[in-house]
Amino acid sequence: MTNKGFILWFTGLSGAGKTTISQALEPQLRAKGCKVEILDGDIVRTHLSKGLTFSKEDRDTNIRRIGFVAHLLSRNGVVAITAAISPYKALRDEIRAMEPNFVEIYIKASLETCESRDVKGLYAKARAGEIKGFTGIDDPYEEPTNPEIICYTAEETVDESVVKIITKLEELGYI
Amino acid sequence: MTNKGFILWFTGLSGAGKTTISQALEPQLRAKGCKVEILDGDIVRTHLSKGLTFSKEDRDTNIRRIGFVAHLLSRNGVVAITAAISPYKALRDEIRAMEPNFVEIYIKASLETCESRDVKGLYAKARAGEIKGFTGIDDPYEEPTNPEIICYTAEETVDESVVKIITKLEELGYI
Repeated sequence: MTNKGFILWFTGLSGAGKTTISQALEPQLRAKGCKVEILDGDIVRTHLSKGLTFSKEDRDTNIRRIGFVAHLLSRNGVVAITAAISPYKALRDEIRAMEPNFVEIYIKASLETCESRDVKGLYAKARAGEIKGFTGIDDPYEEPTNPEIICYTAEETVDESVVKIITKLEELGYI
Repeated sequence: MTNKGFILWFTGLSGAGKTTISQALEPQLRAKGCKVEILDGDIVRTHLSKGLTFSKEDRDTNIRRIGFVAHLLSRNGVVAITAAISPYKALRDEIRAMEPNFVEIYIKASLETCESRDVKGLYAKARAGEIKGFTGIDDPYEEPTNPEIICYTAEETVDESVVKIITKLEELGYI
């Protein structure tokens, strides 16, 4: 059987849990026979978008590139998981319009929660003015208005979020 | 049956016939059950590498990006055909080192032949100095020293080149 490809588009603030949940999800999808690629924000910035800044225009370019590659994978039967902040609604909707099999997952945690975690120390740098245009601090995060799935990472465990995603993908007929 | 993914890396001067042969090859591979994506130089420059120039450094970046995406496709069972000039041997060898299933196809035609075809009018512009760093005119093309396949497009028809490629892929056990 050839599995259906689709894009799982994670979006959310830095530190909300996108990478953690996507990495926990991957083996579960593989166990169900899916091919999976995670296009993590950091990986993509290294291999596809080196040299781009965090300006609005460059962020848009970065998201379009991730969308292009995810679409190539999806239409060849791969589950393409993207895990970039992708803060702008218009760009996420642009990818959704291009890709028939698109599932948006909002990894939701308050700015206070994400900032208190500050796994990479980026919020501290942004507060100190060492990073400009940081999402949530001096650049907006536009919440999804109608995502297929929302994971509340301050209230749910990673396992609970993964179960929620798998259940919804089954409901939607993707797996 | 899941088909094996691999990269078919076309290289050659502008106008040598990379795009023509890759497009003629695609349906033949699909007829054999392969999933195929063509990463044409122009498509890639639009979706992955907008803003990059034709400087040595930017060309290298462009080729690395194509290689990265082709590798993602290949390891998920897709035949990734790349059809960029990819003039520098070191970069092609870098991709070969990364990708276990790599087939280099040198689409060979003399500069005179390619320039006389000048399908896109680019050689005329390069000769007039309107385009700088044009491969074959004022930027080098480094021939492959040991490609798996060579298509001599001044002597062979497109169909002959396609048959040659299919035969070699069968010999190599890729299809």
